[in-house]
Amino acid sequence: MNLKIAIQGIKGSNHHQVAKEYFEDDSQLVECMSFDFLVDRLLDKTADVGVMAIENSIAGSIIPNYALVYHNNLHIIGEHYLNINHNLMVLKGQGIEDIEEVRSHPMALLQCKEFFKDYPQIKMVEDVDTAETAKCIQEQKLKNVAAIAPRVAAELYDLNIVAPEIQTIKNNATRFIIVKTKNKELPKSEINKASVRFVTGHKRGSLAAVLNVMSDCRLNLTKIQSLPIIETPWKYAFFVDVTFEEYEYFEKSKSLLNIMAEDFKVLGEYKNARI
Amino acid sequence: MNLKIAIQGIKGSNHHQVAKEYFEDDSQLVECMSFDFLVDRLLDKTADVGVMAIENSIAGSIIPNYALVYHNNLHIIGEHYLNINHNLMVLKGQGIEDIEEVRSHPMALLQCKEFFKDYPQIKMVEDVDTAETAKCIQEQKLKNVAAIAPRVAAELYDLNIVAPEIQTIKNNATRFIIVKTKNKELPKSEINKASVRFVTGHKRGSLAAVLNVMSDCRLNLTKIQSLPIIETPWKYAFFVDVTFEEYEYFEKSKSLLNIMAEDFKVLGEYKNARI
Repeated sequence: MNLKIAIQGIKGSNHHQVAKEYFEDDSQLVECMSFDFLVDRLLDKTADVGVMAIENSIAGSIIPNYALVYHNNLHIIGEHYLNINHNLMVLKGQGIEDIEEVRSHPMALLQCKEFFKDYPQIKMVEDVDTAETAKCIQEQKLKNVAAIAPRVAAELYDLNIVAPEIQTIKNNATRFIIVKTKNKELPKSEINKASVRFVTGHKRGSLAAVLNVMSDCRLNLTKIQSLPIIETPWKYAFFVDVTFEEYEYFEKSKSLLNIMAEDFKVLGEYKNARI
Repeated sequence: MNLKIAIQGIKGSNHHQVAKEYFEDDSQLVECMSFDFLVDRLLDKTADVGVMAIENSIAGSIIPNYALVYHNNLHIIGEHYLNINHNLMVLKGQGIEDIEEVRSHPMALLQCKEFFKDYPQIKMVEDVDTAETAKCIQEQKLKNVAAIAPRVAAELYDLNIVAPEIQTIKNNATRFIIVKTKNKELPKSEINKASVRFVTGHKRGSLAAVLNVMSDCRLNLTKIQSLPIIETPWKYAFFVDVTFEEYEYFEKSKSLLNIMAEDFKVLGEYKNARI
């Protein structure tokens, strides 16, 4: 039985690219218009597993997705890093000199603006999605129009990449998490990373105290993000990712943090995708 | 002489709303298509001061803006909190029953989707900007079309708010920073907040050590955000905001952190806008 994988966006998007790279079989995709919609598909069991962007080396954390994982009791069962590449693509038979207009998401256009300085004849037009434009070019056989999209979109919609990786910053790694409604039981020996959330009050040094415990338990912090708790002034929630060599180190810190921090919750225990 | 204020977006945007609330005189606005463009206007002296969204209680930190402040040596001279209100507006003479289509930014539509469940006849159409739609409705006298935009847009483009504050989460406070190329010399007695950036290596407990110093110096942490340093694995930059009762507390911690942390930099010293 094929795994039903919920992705944000349509086929040909970066989320599709991740599904393709992470799973052996990406034949059963559930396209979701938004991350909220994606979570609903997991909860109503239309999909077995979901792929969600969670942080980006340029744009930072995608906080609403942390909140979605937390509030819907999802479990992070894995992670995947994708270098976001913006490829310029057109209908087959067309070349870069035929392009009069490039349509893409404002963020993608911004990240490629240096490239287009050499092509002043190409008009940059803002659009809602990247893969959507690629699909539209093929369906409507649009000439003189280019899309900026991931490689998988060119394959899927049979377009020609006339310039690959046109973004200015070449290393734009985005971290995606793989989520489920149930925690996958990886053998403890394979778990070397975890995501947790906790709350501290506005007492000076309360975060430092928690981090000292983590450090004493030999956990390495790879990410920290504070978030004010809405309608509770001076209280902060922290989303923290840690890596460790032995699962028992993490187990020890869990029992301590359960006592020390408020609302301590493990969002997922999984295998570090960065070596 | 009027202050030339650079805002992201056009008149009628949330950035305009902030300029209106923060400055006595907002008559000289410089509309900027992007945050990069806004910084360029400060550097080439077309504008004296800039208004930049920096974090949001729903969406989290706007990391690229931290990077812009840091890399361009801008100074944060103040901050302002705005509760982002989405107001449904139409041409004067029209009512909510006349609306066939609402156009707005995907994020604004998402935040208001609960409201529109009661109005299934209204089609939701994604658009690139919020204020832009309001402007367009007035210029083209568009009937049966509504915009979701801040209050200032209704005033400016002479539209009628048929439903105020239609977003589901009512407290969506966004923090904006006021930036300049030169640091404004506030008297030390008025400074009680600062934004700093520093780097730590992948040594276990290095962040905890820095936070311990801050805590010892009686600084309160109001925000922390880690960011991997592109192309330098295992090194992290931290953006931290602190508040303090006495400026001398901060001065003392500065001299310690200059020694302890790598690349320690003060991004701004200013007055806390939250009381």
